[in-house]
Amino acid sequence: MPELRKDPISGRWVIISVERGKRPTDFIPPSQKRKVGGFCPFCPGNEHTTTPEIIAFRPASTPPNSPGWTLRVVPNKFPALQIYGDLNKMGEGIFDKMNGIGAHEVIIESPEHQLSLATMPLRAVEDVLWAYYFRLNDLKKDMRFKYVLIFKNEGEIAGAALEHSHSQLIALPIVPKSVKEEMDSSKKYYESKERCLLCDIINQEIEANKRVIFENDRYVALAPFAPREPFETWILPKRHESSLFPTEKSFSGLAEILQRILKQLDSVLDTPPYNFVLHTSPFKEEINEYYHWHIEIVPKLTRMAGFEWGSGFYINPVPPEEAAKFMREAKV
Amino acid sequence: MPELRKDPISGRWVIISVERGKRPTDFIPPSQKRKVGGFCPFCPGNEHTTTPEIIAFRPASTPPNSPGWTLRVVPNKFPALQIYGDLNKMGEGIFDKMNGIGAHEVIIESPEHQLSLATMPLRAVEDVLWAYYFRLNDLKKDMRFKYVLIFKNEGEIAGAALEHSHSQLIALPIVPKSVKEEMDSSKKYYESKERCLLCDIINQEIEANKRVIFENDRYVALAPFAPREPFETWILPKRHESSLFPTEKSFSGLAEILQRILKQLDSVLDTPPYNFVLHTSPFKEEINEYYHWHIEIVPKLTRMAGFEWGSGFYINPVPPEEAAKFMREAKV
Repeated sequence: MPELRKDPISGRWVIISVERGKRPTDFIPPSQKRKVGGFCPFCPGNEHTTTPEIIAFRPASTPPNSPGWTLRVVPNKFPALQIYGDLNKMGEGIFDKMNGIGAHEVIIESPEHQLSLATMPLRAVEDVLWAYYFRLNDLKKDMRFKYVLIFKNEGEIAGAALEHSHSQLIALPIVPKSVKEEMDSSKKYYESKERCLLCDIINQEIEANKRVIFENDRYVALAPFAPREPFETWILPKRHESSLFPTEKSFSGLAEILQRILKQLDSVLDTPPYNFVLHTSPFKEEINEYYHWHIEIVPKLTRMAGFEWGSGFYINPVPPEEAAKFMREAKV
Repeated sequence: MPELRKDPISGRWVIISVERGKRPTDFIPPSQKRKVGGFCPFCPGNEHTTTPEIIAFRPASTPPNSPGWTLRVVPNKFPALQIYGDLNKMGEGIFDKMNGIGAHEVIIESPEHQLSLATMPLRAVEDVLWAYYFRLNDLKKDMRFKYVLIFKNEGEIAGAALEHSHSQLIALPIVPKSVKEEMDSSKKYYESKERCLLCDIINQEIEANKRVIFENDRYVALAPFAPREPFETWILPKRHESSLFPTEKSFSGLAEILQRILKQLDSVLDTPPYNFVLHTSPFKEEINEYYHWHIEIVPKLTRMAGFEWGSGFYINPVPPEEAAKFMREAKV
């Protein structure tokens, strides 16, 4: 019997409907393994082909925009938003609009073209998280911005224009709809229970131990109860934290669980394309009791039906309990 | 300068950001023109390979599940939901779930394999709309169902498993998230203005005449102010109607505008894959003053970034005013 399940934080219902005769691994999309050869603007030696770096992790002896770095953050060469100017909020009759002011940056995660976030040294993953944190803290000083959307498109099918491992951030004068919805439902839950919704979910999931994929001291990775897609995975801090923050001045625990999950996905789904999005509190309510930051990772499977994003309605052929089992058993 | 725009009915913001040196027609996806050859379960003569028909438009002289029909509605052979059983709503700790009860049907739109909704006789398009209407009216008698989601995936990239022109419907014991959100914002607007939000939008759009693509006596097709994707198009009744309904006992005006828009998309984007979704009022509030039914058509472009549906945040490189101009000038 298929099952209808509701995700309490987004409010969406999904159908969990196993296709007859299909196993979870029948949904393997084309492998996104790195190819070699060709010009890459993100490779060392080509620093002059990107926009000048905003920050970089590099020895003090090396000048900016030269080789020697381990991580660079540069403005997107083809930004979706423009950094200079006023918001100039206006109506157009019944409609609302404003200038497309914002920052659009690229985090080049490693100098080595052939490495992915799953295969680079753990220390490099930690540095990627530090870069996110530093950029969040710098951009929040700009009063025009309400939110910074940090995301990664891995593989061409998932929207990556370049193969060299990178994430992106977009600083926005608005809060994206999905974050706003999660804030609203978390607040509503807090008003009635005086507890954080995701704290309660985490406790229940660890207790039930059906959808937990991996946990360490500080973080847990789980298949959500009502996932939109097969192998959708969330990573959350176990203790309440409203915004991305280094625990005891370190991102080592988060880097460990993030890389492990990506390795498990690579193992189970043969290096799939995926997207991940950081969901963290908007700047104005950075520290709060009700919202629990997390990372949502969604492998992009080629079989995804097209109407789903248009209707807000998802049919998922792989129960999260099965996906979690496959992930737990993956050799990494 | 890019522009941030808010869609008043869904509440989502989109960035309209023209990519330098790109024209709207640079986003043409792979053509979905019909191929010939191979076995097709939806072609006449193969009626026994589908599940038995629920309704069919056919001469009285022909028996069910035999050739001679012009349209058939059959249960989906691989349904996402199951028709028999009770909902059995339950909690699982903090979570909500119920049995996956529902109907999943396929509307086979024409006996001719090589025809699409854009190329079949207009009369056949009218019959497709009648089939939607008949099925809606039959399924609403089942008290377990709150909503019927009617949609079409055209082309493999848009999720169509079979090439032969068909639409689908899913009868649901819940209201899909995107419809619920639209109902909520329409109600809120009505509470403050005592007018329908989409009625006000339609009046403003016809007056401004920047985003209108086509109109006839009863219907208007427009590029919405804040579209998620290039060439997203909405078709709406000009007068207030809360649910899909034949005007003066006819669907001829709706068939005309729907087919014309699909012909224009085929002309501008070289027979693109697309999805459309009917947004109509839930059964419980079928007739109301605040919600305005409509069809949302979204061509599926290969360049779609993957993170967008995960963040509820869209970057659209083609302003709707330009898309509307291209569509108006298309030779059909």
